Amino acid sequence: MRTITETVPLDHLHGWHHDRSTGFIAHESGRFFSVEGLLVERQSPGAAWGQPIINQPETGILGFLVKEFDGILHILMQLKAEPGNRNGLQLSPTVQATKSNYTGIHGGLPVPYLEYFQEPGRRIIADVRQSEQGSRFLRKRNRNMIVETTEPVEARDGFVWLTLGQLHRLLATEDLVNMSTRSVLACLPLGNDAGAAADEGFGTALARSLAADGPALHPLVDVLSWITETRTLSEMRARTVPLDALTDWAFTGGRIRHRAGKHFEVIGVRVEAVGREVGQWWQPMIRAQSTELAALLVTRVRGVLHVLMQLRIEPGLTDTAELAPTVQCTPADCAQLPPEQRPPFLDLVQNAGPADIRFDTTLSDEGGRFYHTGSRHLVVETDWLPEPLEFRWLTPGQLEDLAQHSHYLNMQARSVLACLRSLYDGGDR
Amino acid sequence: MRTITETVPLDHLHGWHHDRSTGFIAHESGRFFSVEGLLVERQSPGAAWGQPIINQPETGILGFLVKEFDGILHILMQLKAEPGNRNGLQLSPTVQATKSNYTGIHGGLPVPYLEYFQEPGRRIIADVRQSEQGSRFLRKRNRNMIVETTEPVEARDGFVWLTLGQLHRLLATEDLVNMSTRSVLACLPLGNDAGAAADEGFGTALARSLAADGPALHPLVDVLSWITETRTLSEMRARTVPLDALTDWAFTGGRIRHRAGKHFEVIGVRVEAVGREVGQWWQPMIRAQSTELAALLVTRVRGVLHVLMQLRIEPGLTDTAELAPTVQCTPADCAQLPPEQRPPFLDLVQNAGPADIRFDTTLSDEGGRFYHTGSRHLVVETDWLPEPLEFRWLTPGQLEDLAQHSHYLNMQARSVLACLRSLYDGGDR
Repeated sequence: MRTITETVPLDHLHGWHHDRSTGFIAHESGRFFSVEGLLVERQSPGAAWGQPIINQPETGILGFLVKEFDGILHILMQLKAEPGNRNGLQLSPTVQATKSNYTGIHGGLPVPYLEYFQEPGRRIIADVRQSEQGSRFLRKRNRNMIVETTEPVEARDGFVWLTLGQLHRLLATEDLVNMSTRSVLACLPLGNDAGAAADEGFGTALARSLAADGPALHPLVDVLSWITETRTLSEMRARTVPLDALTDWAFTGGRIRHRAGKHFEVIGVRVEAVGREVGQWWQPMIRAQSTELAALLVTRVRGVLHVLMQLRIEPGLTDTAELAPTVQCTPADCAQLPPEQRPPFLDLVQNAGPADIRFDTTLSDEGGRFYHTGSRHLVVETDWLPEPLEFRWLTPGQLEDLAQHSHYLNMQARSVLACLRSLYDGGDR
Repeated sequence: MRTITETVPLDHLHGWHHDRSTGFIAHESGRFFSVEGLLVERQSPGAAWGQPIINQPETGILGFLVKEFDGILHILMQLKAEPGNRNGLQLSPTVQATKSNYTGIHGGLPVPYLEYFQEPGRRIIADVRQSEQGSRFLRKRNRNMIVETTEPVEARDGFVWLTLGQLHRLLATEDLVNMSTRSVLACLPLGNDAGAAADEGFGTALARSLAADGPALHPLVDVLSWITETRTLSEMRARTVPLDALTDWAFTGGRIRHRAGKHFEVIGVRVEAVGREVGQWWQPMIRAQSTELAALLVTRVRGVLHVLMQLRIEPGLTDTAELAPTVQCTPADCAQLPPEQRPPFLDLVQNAGPADIRFDTTLSDEGGRFYHTGSRHLVVETDWLPEPLEFRWLTPGQLEDLAQHSHYLNMQARSVLACLRSLYDGGDR
């Protein structure tokens, strides 16, 4: 089971065309996804920009099948090749399927274990639609599901039962645990029983912070009010336009790239696969120009870990703004900026010493849409710092509550929160 | 303080025009709102329809200022005239202002008490964006706020401090408590202390059901999963089109009406007001062809009240589907339908005997957009009934939890739930 991916010019993708009437790159069947132009306007600070964006108006399933063996929670993980993966196989949820996959539009094979996520009477642990990256996808959401079974389930070829503790430890391996897995992990209620532990280690502070009723700096109602206010006052308006109308972007050399070489480019690929839905296909993909950064600042307040979350407005989000990591940016794009225009806390997390770094691993974006693209996932402990207007210190317990609902945690936040939560050594429940 | 409203032809509204390029009715300033055409397609059951819809892409504030006097919660209510009110004044939240109002686009007077909802450091009880009617408004939401103050506050002319108990009792008066008030009331966490009471009355069953941790037929995670699944599988797509493209609707006699006389019509009005923002203005309004129905079936399960909620897909909702009353329809439009096409439970609630009716009052839709339009609000107690696929028995406590977040309870649900909750006699906390 492997894939071979080669880049090809966007105008040589079999089955895809640059639609003259819309100006989008779309599949001839009208299905899968399209690459469209997006014009974004913000009343304040008066910024406006255009960019390509992926429009895929269907909800896929990202599903964990979980089961207790000898009292220990196990997750059925899939070793899955995706065309954009740098390194071939990555650990993927039990089911990771677009609607086209699981309804058979590809004409491919049935999706293994899908029935556990569709049967009535299943035991649900989490089931929530979560956003994909709001600067790459237009209102795209996936259904993040965790379903527990008590039946005997055989791990088929390419699947493996891992404990939550094993999966947590594997997160520290570069480019191994894929983005969908991180997203679903962030939706898993961890619970904890270390709230009364006496020691003052990082793990204990994290465990205390995971208690749903743990002491938090901001009551949840104030957090919700802050989110409501930001969404209400935001004046971002976005509308799709033909790709040709994006003046900062050029369609040259068979790809679409930013004229200043920033952000990302849209490329074409031809994929040959063995053991996937079909043997060969073509598709557009997103390739970042450099590695991105998703960094969390954490601090202990009266022995309870708090995370500095940013409320970030992104044009592709369904509801305007979602909680994002303390720093979410492309450092290479920020290197030339004067200090006052650099993202808050960027220098602080980039200059953190080894003694303050709790997690530091580069992990891939989803290999079905992103080509050799990933983010450095960084968790840095700091003393308490004052909150800028668009930042709040929240507990992982509060974030876990919010993760049960749509539109609160963005993709990058879920991804790096999964890394932070992996440091809680209570996984093997 | 009163308004005089007269209907005028839509094409004689000063300041408004039928925009040739979009085909919408819009204000010449580009502000306020527009009336647009909407084409709606559903893959299954294959239905498609067109309708006019209001597009008002700004979030207004509906705010209660509350304060304890002698340990009893009071709400500062406003007696407010709206052009669409049948009866002049209705009880309105302390602040009920569109963004155009509170940013002074009207060139009108400042909004009284607005500062309590904008000050940092205010004590928030609830703050959540909630949808307006999803079959009349395109993704419209208002910010529903409840703010407590401990400062002395004088009730200005036209304002009055009412206890929650008084407001609850006034809900039983026809067309008195306005729609915005009902919406905010549904977001107020009631709490309760009657869970252990021994008697078996309706009020006790309601109080028990308001306990956040009360025993419910369905765990909340299963309710969230059901909502996620319905939203994921829904295939409704809606797009705006010129009003002229709506083949079932005719622009004749200065108004837009359904060719079969169903649903509603868009009319024009001229308003003269004393004591409002400006002395005279013109605007389009929605007039329903007959009174609508928002009915709840309730039952007691092991002494705990449960409400039969419907998950309803509406084209103007931001996230596809929201919980709606058991029955939400226009009975006159259903009278000719064969039994299998009538909304489930319509006959049951319409034929309920007086012994089973717990609440029955006709209340107005929002008088700023709806002309002499209202719904019969009906609560009927029944024995337990099996749940059709798109229905679930939920407790008022679960619904109160969900009301703290956006996109769970539709306008009609909040409105009739406020009526049900008014029967809980624990209001004067």
